[in-house]
Amino acid sequence: MSPSQNKDILVGIVGVGLVGGELVKQILSINKAKNPFKIVLLSSSRKALYTSPENAITDSEGWKAKFDASAEKAELSKFGGYLAGLVAQGKGRKAVIVDNTSSEDVARLYPEWIAQGLSVATPNKKAFSGEKKTWDAILAASDSEGGGRWLNESTVGAGLPVINTLKEMLGSGDKVKKIEGVFSGTMSYIFNNFSAASSDAPKPVFSEVVKVAREKGYTEPHPADDLNGFDVARKLTILARTVSALSHSQTKLPELESFLDVQTQSLIPAPLEGLASGDEFVGKLPGFDEEFNKLREEAAKEGQVLRFVGVVDVEAGVVKAGLEKYPVTHPFATSLGGSDNIIMFHTERYSPRPLIVQGAGAGAAVTAMGVLGDLLKLV
Amino acid sequence: MSPSQNKDILVGIVGVGLVGGELVKQILSINKAKNPFKIVLLSSSRKALYTSPENAITDSEGWKAKFDASAEKAELSKFGGYLAGLVAQGKGRKAVIVDNTSSEDVARLYPEWIAQGLSVATPNKKAFSGEKKTWDAILAASDSEGGGRWLNESTVGAGLPVINTLKEMLGSGDKVKKIEGVFSGTMSYIFNNFSAASSDAPKPVFSEVVKVAREKGYTEPHPADDLNGFDVARKLTILARTVSALSHSQTKLPELESFLDVQTQSLIPAPLEGLASGDEFVGKLPGFDEEFNKLREEAAKEGQVLRFVGVVDVEAGVVKAGLEKYPVTHPFATSLGGSDNIIMFHTERYSPRPLIVQGAGAGAAVTAMGVLGDLLKLV
Repeated sequence: MSPSQNKDILVGIVGVGLVGGELVKQILSINKAKNPFKIVLLSSSRKALYTSPENAITDSEGWKAKFDASAEKAELSKFGGYLAGLVAQGKGRKAVIVDNTSSEDVARLYPEWIAQGLSVATPNKKAFSGEKKTWDAILAASDSEGGGRWLNESTVGAGLPVINTLKEMLGSGDKVKKIEGVFSGTMSYIFNNFSAASSDAPKPVFSEVVKVAREKGYTEPHPADDLNGFDVARKLTILARTVSALSHSQTKLPELESFLDVQTQSLIPAPLEGLASGDEFVGKLPGFDEEFNKLREEAAKEGQVLRFVGVVDVEAGVVKAGLEKYPVTHPFATSLGGSDNIIMFHTERYSPRPLIVQGAGAGAAVTAMGVLGDLLKLV
Repeated sequence: MSPSQNKDILVGIVGVGLVGGELVKQILSINKAKNPFKIVLLSSSRKALYTSPENAITDSEGWKAKFDASAEKAELSKFGGYLAGLVAQGKGRKAVIVDNTSSEDVARLYPEWIAQGLSVATPNKKAFSGEKKTWDAILAASDSEGGGRWLNESTVGAGLPVINTLKEMLGSGDKVKKIEGVFSGTMSYIFNNFSAASSDAPKPVFSEVVKVAREKGYTEPHPADDLNGFDVARKLTILARTVSALSHSQTKLPELESFLDVQTQSLIPAPLEGLASGDEFVGKLPGFDEEFNKLREEAAKEGQVLRFVGVVDVEAGVVKAGLEKYPVTHPFATSLGGSDNIIMFHTERYSPRPLIVQGAGAGAAVTAMGVLGDLLKLV
């Protein structure tokens, strides 16, 4: 075994759809002489491809065909053992599993993988925003002797430097007072168009904005899956738990049993709650345009706009998501556009003016970039 | 030697003034059980304190008195050998030198230190923005077998996630088209006040704004040291060189022999060029208020404001700093305030809307935080 092999970072990739495929492309775009990553495991929900480190995936054109030709079934329970076994064979080797799915089943395995010494890098929010016992198990496994790391930059704001900025603030002893932002690209697009800062901008009805957003692919197939606010609640849960876990002193934040504990305002009109069909939902939404018009008018009278924001108020001990009003001169009104995310960190050091990060918070390329940024931390 | 000692990261700190003192405080604030950092060397320009890893500095109250009591002279040339020697004694140990000075003499030693396997973390812009041969030597040393790393997040925007965001973009194969921003807190303060976006904001004369900025400590003792634009030119040099060094393909950016190659517009009125006294400079500045008034009026007629911006235009192959006009609705006009920095990354992936980072770009606490963030990457 040559000394250079000892710096190998073995990569197992679970989920090879849009984000996973983009990640493979980005990993293989790194100059071969300097590329520490060896992709030795690929898996979809159905099949898997295992390779030795010597025969790792290197062909950015042909990898998909090779994967499709594999006859191995995907067995999640085998992945950890396979990678840990390879690590044991090569002194100095490390391994990481990347989870590009949004699966609960995959998320539940993180504690086991981390305890085996594997790191986990993922844009999947489930493990960090779901049941508290999974989150606690991740922290415990990572803190244990020889435990791997959890790397989740892409769970909030995709490739934007949000989670790592927060981790560094907390790690260096800064005190977070409040994090607030527009965390959903869908909600951003909807309200940037429905309630624009400029007074001469068009004033479309709410249902029309949602319809167009859906047609452009900015919403889930069923827009209620965005309008329920759960995506924002999950992101806030991740931020709040990170603050609690990494703060140098106790905070007033509530212990969230899951993202359902976040005070979340749903924008689904009550009579449309539970409709199974996205088409039917969109068809009936115009019946509620008057309510949204009224909210917009009330805000406009005060020189304000509507934005769907999430807040982790550490000082007040509150975590909440909902519709809020902001003056037309506020960055959430003026600076925001498209389907951008914007996140403000108010901390002891960034005070009175916050640290602000803004930009696209979704999309395969920027999500994969956030994951690869995490992988580069293992080098 | 116990196994836990093998994960030690030995830290030598050169410069124990405002930033250095804050860094020591932040390092020692980390929970002792989890703190991988052992401060084994402290140095000012005059004296030094060496300790063994077993007797590393741990007393956040008493360290300064202990340092002041040291009789050892500061000999820069000894630091590398001292730390490399300690690394050699403990398997798995790493070491890093933090340079909190703005000294050219310290900067010139980076290549030697990095070649010895030590990493360098620093807010000092000199090495990365000065003579090209020093920069080339840093890259070569770091690329060599066993070379250490160069970590310079705090050289641009202090603790804001600028350099690492850029490194991750480039490392994952994104193509940077243009970076533009307000990179000087001093220039930000001056023009946010001189040329405010709001039409009913006060319209002070230029010399008055500079005078107040100086009294508040926002400028150097001699304001010409800010108004010459060199601080911005140095930051642009660092960004441009980073883009050139880490892009996956050749760029059109010029090879900068030093920051003096950046097209930089000086705001020092020609007749005041070379005045030795800051007081005299400020006293004579009112004679040039009319010129600045005229610029502001011209911009206002077009609905624009003045901002001193830096641009690394990768597509055009241009690196320049100077006074530019921006519409009052532009983030440089509306979102900016105080002495904030704002940086926009236009890339292939962040297109058409850029990734934006904004916040305080100077100050001991946020600068030290940026350095500690870099140190945490070594863990």
